[in-house]
This record gives sequence, structure tokens and C-alpha cells, in this order.
Amino acid sequence: MADAEHGPIAIVSGGGSFPGAVAEAIVRRGRKPVMFGIKGWADPNVVARYTHYWIAIGQIGRFIRLAQSEHCSDMLFIGSVIRPPIRDLRLDWLTIRMMPRLAAAYRGGDDRLLSGLARIAEIGGMRVIGLADVAPELFAPEGQLGRYGPSDRDMDDIARGLKLITALGPFDVGQAVIVANNHVLAVEGAEGTDNMLARIAELRWQGRVTAAPGTGVLVKAPKPGQDRRVDLPSIGPRTIEGAASAGLAGVAVASGGTIVTDTTAVIAAADEAKVFLVGVDAAE
Amino acid sequence: MADAEHGPIAIVSGGGSFPGAVAEAIVRRGRKPVMFGIKGWADPNVVARYTHYWIAIGQIGRFIRLAQSEHCSDMLFIGSVIRPPIRDLRLDWLTIRMMPRLAAAYRGGDDRLLSGLARIAEIGGMRVIGLADVAPELFAPEGQLGRYGPSDRDMDDIARGLKLITALGPFDVGQAVIVANNHVLAVEGAEGTDNMLARIAELRWQGRVTAAPGTGVLVKAPKPGQDRRVDLPSIGPRTIEGAASAGLAGVAVASGGTIVTDTTAVIAAADEAKVFLVGVDAAE
Repeated sequence: MADAEHGPIAIVSGGGSFPGAVAEAIVRRGRKPVMFGIKGWADPNVVARYTHYWIAIGQIGRFIRLAQSEHCSDMLFIGSVIRPPIRDLRLDWLTIRMMPRLAAAYRGGDDRLLSGLARIAEIGGMRVIGLADVAPELFAPEGQLGRYGPSDRDMDDIARGLKLITALGPFDVGQAVIVANNHVLAVEGAEGTDNMLARIAELRWQGRVTAAPGTGVLVKAPKPGQDRRVDLPSIGPRTIEGAASAGLAGVAVASGGTIVTDTTAVIAAADEAKVFLVGVDAAE
Repeated sequence: MADAEHGPIAIVSGGGSFPGAVAEAIVRRGRKPVMFGIKGWADPNVVARYTHYWIAIGQIGRFIRLAQSEHCSDMLFIGSVIRPPIRDLRLDWLTIRMMPRLAAAYRGGDDRLLSGLARIAEIGGMRVIGLADVAPELFAPEGQLGRYGPSDRDMDDIARGLKLITALGPFDVGQAVIVANNHVLAVEGAEGTDNMLARIAELRWQGRVTAAPGTGVLVKAPKPGQDRRVDLPSIGPRTIEGAASAGLAGVAVASGGTIVTDTTAVIAAADEAKVFLVGVDAAE
């Protein structure tokens, strides 16, 4: 694998437009992206812009064969994959041999599912790299982004949110929480960040969340011990709009550990909605 | 206060029918309930069946005067109170003098808000008793209730849920969680248990929760360190219906630490919906 640092990179792509942004970053670095769209999840319009193949979850052997035929020894997982029902898994031979390992990963939660898939790919000879290795510019930097900044009270809420995410580390849940006036309003589960924000907007409308408008922070950070090569929190313009609708003061993300899918659009959305966006050092 | 063990008991009542069940339990014990309905929260139909007064949050002095005029030296808080906007608080003189203490409690979350109110009432000469002191029969017992019981896999999910609730202890959030196949699907925040269950029902419908129907457990328990005199988790028939709609296998509650608002109706609902209901020792 003498060409590992320069050769083509296999991108295993889940949904959304973000795999395209990653492919562009790889092109800017002078390497070739090869897209492996996950059937049912990846967006054909994104995948088809590059050399590409379609794979099903459970076809790890097929993936490795195709990736190697394209001279990819590095691979990236992009876009979260909702755990499919077991009946929908199409298993190939390598995957079946690895089944006990995969079943253990499957039971352990999304985080471990993806880590388990990564380990199996590594056993098959692939090197699993992280987004930070090829596209560090896609991560939130530290400090205030945009026009508005957090107040001291917001900083307290941010600190409490980061502590909560740390405490949730062992449970494969809660990359995002909402804290207002030191009070935890929501912990993200299977619903995702957008739904969690919509819930707080609705509870505020119903008078069941009574913190004043412009109070509270969405805090988003990778869990401690999370395999950052396979699963990272991300925000986009919709996150900002959701935070504004939920009446929050702003959004805080772990710098270097949270993907910003479109920085320019995200900052414009924050300024427009008069909410702050700040990258914080989650390791503090 | 020689009559403290036998005299009338002041019941500070939030919403729902449960304050009525508590009043009945007190009557069965040969003591007299005096209802103090919280304006805007308590149900007039429930409150008016007993000697009663209406109070606003923030009128602790008025409450103590009235309770003492009714010869109550014991008091109970029943029914959770949604934190009112500060502009809606009507403060009397005792409350204003205690304001710094109350403000600290207010910032600390619902649990500490209620504990703070309890401490102020104690300073005013009241004894705050717990529901366990006067109506232990309203708590979930240990073991299987109803016809169905948890599988080994369900027991694993219950153990994980209880561990998660313990980890959330310092954060005044999450008296209830949903775990399926060892995977945490939801943590209760400001939305309450019914809304959390409705969310999982919806996510299942959308295919975003893919655990097979009849998988997963709602786990509900007091947080470690929670002041059990002022705030306890509770379930009713609606909780069971919500768990069934969410496709869960059953419901596990901390025995001795979770209120069952109507045991007969709850067990009938569980049998009807073919979900299990079990009281577990959360201290294990």
C-alpha cells in the first residue's frame, strides 16, 4: 500500500448532500473519490457525479472487492445509516463469516455497529480513515462564528450540556442536548437533532417550556470514546433554523469534532435568525 | 405538634386526578385531607370534593397561614408543576424574603425547585411528608403485575435503562428512558413520558426505529438523590397505551419509587395490550 496516502479513496455514502462535499474536498487534495452509495440511503444525484457503485449493508465482501478493483486502500464512512431491519440485510460470504462479530456490534448501538463494520473492513484489508484526515476544513473551528456570541448564562448552559454528553458517553445516545437556564430540556435519541428542536419549539408554543424566548442552547459534541472515523455529529443551515424556531439563544458545537455541512450557509442562517454559533473545546 | 401523626394533612395539588386518589388514601387512614389547588394547574372537580383553598405559586406565606388555620402541620406535594414563567409568579412577603433561596432553586431545575419550595415551607413551620408515609399502596410493588412478563432480552434492556437513569442523576432530567435491544431510543426531557412514547411510535411508523414490534422497554424510576417527598415518577393507563402504540414489549418501573395512579386500570390496560408491566428494584 505504498500509494495509500495518494491513491483513490472509497467513500461509503449514506444520505444527504454531505458525501458530495467530502468528495469535493478529496478532489481538492488531489485524490480520487470512488463513491459506494448505500442502497436506499444515498442520494443518486450525489453519488452519480463520481465513479460509483451501489452496495447494500451486509455486502462487505463485495464492497472490498470493488474498492480494491478501483485501487482504493483507504475508505471513509460518510452519513449516518439508520440501522436497517435485520430482514433487509443482504449478507455476502465475508459478512456471514463475520456474523458473530457483526451481531455483537448490531446489538451495541449505532456507534458500535459502524465501528464493527469498520473493523470487518479492516480485516478485509482496507484502511478506515477519518474525515479529519482528508477534509479538516469541514469541521467547526473554535470560537464565535457569525455575528452573535453567547452570554455568560449561555456559557453556563453550554458547560452543563457538555458535561451531560460526557455522562451519556457509555450509552450510545445523545450527541446533542438542549439546556436552558441550567435546566436540561431535551436529550437526543433516535429522533435526531431536527426532531428534537421541533419538539422544544412545540413545547414552548404549548407553554410547557417556559424559559423566556432567546434562552437556551443546543449543544452538540461527539461522545467520549466515540469512533470519530465512522460517526460524527454534524450541523447544517436546518439546525440553525430549528434552534431559532425552538427559541434558543444559540448553538454550541465541539470544535474539531462536529461537521459543518456548509459553513457559509450556516453562518448566514445564524446571523439572519439572530442566534449565536460557537465552536467550543469539548475536551476542557 | 402533638397531633402531627393524626391531624389533617395539607395537599398541595397540581394537575390530574391523582391528588384525589391521595386524598382518598388519607381518608382511609382516618386523617383529613385539606386541598390547596395550584391555580391554573389543579383540576377544580378534584379539589372541590374536599375542604380546599386555591393558591398561586409564590404564595408560600399565604399557604402556610391557611394550612395552619386548618390545623395542618403536615403537607404533601402532589402532581408535577410545570415551571411557570417568572412574570406569572405572584409573590407574597414570606416568598420575597426567601427569594434568593428560591431563585437558586428555580435555576436548578424542577427537582430542586420543588425541594426549594419544600425547604421554605419547613422554615415556615410545616413538616413536608412523602406519599410513602401516608399512601404506600399507591406505589408499584416488586415483580410482575398482570399477565405478561419480561424476556431475558427485556431484562437486559431494563438493566441498561436503570443504569442510564442513574448516570443522568446529576442532571435533573430523564426519569424515563426507552431501550430496545440494548440500544437507547429515547431519554425523557421536558416533553414528558406520553410525548416520548408518541415520538417512538411515530419513528417506528416512519421506519426510523427498526427494532421489531414487541421489542423494547419503557423504564421509569426516580433519579438517585431525588427528593422523593416532592417529585416522583408515575404511570397510569395512558402510559401503558403509549408503550403499546410505540411497539414496546413492556414497561418497567422502580418498585416502591413509582406511583401507579390506578393499579386496576393499569393492569387491565397492560393485559389488553399484551405488554408486560414489572416492578423492579432500582437500587440493585
